[in-house]
Amino acid sequence: MNEQKKILTMFVENNYGVTSRISGLFSRRGFNIDSFTGCDTLNPRYSRITVTVHGDERSLEQIEKQVSKLEDVIDIVDLTKVDSVCRELVLVKIRVLPEQRQAIMAVAGIYHGKVVDVTKDSMIIEITGKQEKVRAFIDLIDDYEVLEVASTGLTGLVRGSGRSGANRN
Amino acid sequence: MNEQKKILTMFVENNYGVTSRISGLFSRRGFNIDSFTGCDTLNPRYSRITVTVHGDERSLEQIEKQVSKLEDVIDIVDLTKVDSVCRELVLVKIRVLPEQRQAIMAVAGIYHGKVVDVTKDSMIIEITGKQEKVRAFIDLIDDYEVLEVASTGLTGLVRGSGRSGANRN
Repeated sequence: MNEQKKILTMFVENNYGVTSRISGLFSRRGFNIDSFTGCDTLNPRYSRITVTVHGDERSLEQIEKQVSKLEDVIDIVDLTKVDSVCRELVLVKIRVLPEQRQAIMAVAGIYHGKVVDVTKDSMIIEITGKQEKVRAFIDLIDDYEVLEVASTGLTGLVRGSGRSGANRN
Repeated sequence: MNEQKKILTMFVENNYGVTSRISGLFSRRGFNIDSFTGCDTLNPRYSRITVTVHGDERSLEQIEKQVSKLEDVIDIVDLTKVDSVCRELVLVKIRVLPEQRQAIMAVAGIYHGKVVDVTKDSMIIEITGKQEKVRAFIDLIDDYEVLEVASTGLTGLVRGSGRSGANRN
């Protein structure tokens, strides 16, 4: 089966329970959500929800249509189908002895990572970018013991001056 | 009423429908979710979900208990109650004429923002950090027309070498 990935970003009415209605629709249709981000916009009436899922082309097209029919959803864009900027933020906690700090900081520097916590035996690095870049960083520090990872999941915007949910953001 | 904020981070079994079960519990109990992030961990069996909510102390304590009783939830930590690092990533699309670019870039620089898209009449700035910092940046560029904002919502880790869902990440 030809698996594809969709990054669906939705501009939604900030109605009570909108997060569970949207995630529930995906799970009822048999999708396992790869990442889910939901947050307020500048206008408290609206939220933006971004869902990353994979599956075959036909099911993905169907779920996009079904989501767009929800009353809460004002606008939906598949960010993989348009020229877009998609980003995630990942916090990586690594077991690091003092003598290893320099080496980890050098690798983090290559990926423009920021050190956000240091203790005697650990460090937390913040790294942002496209999913592939973040994964490459984690692969590269594989020799060290990665204690924990916290990822926000993807969010994104269409490039250029256009906007979704026009005039309502 | 004394409103408080909770940032609940959960280490969960990556079961089918876990996102909608967790968000559904919050909405059934009358909470409007401020932000919701969910993503895979290094181990495909587990995911991390972070939910930001506000309310009075008693309701917040109750919801934390109720969530912790869900079968999917291995571990839950309120990041506002411990020494933690919490971060979000925000993409801000601004209407910018070429002669205004320098000024926007100077402000973005103060907040360690990155320019991730430029067109003839717009720019997208990526900014990361604590929620307060991100909001301060948006306030500061209020003179310009903000076209769209996409935020991941908060994720976070406990500082130091401890970890949640010990040995299972």
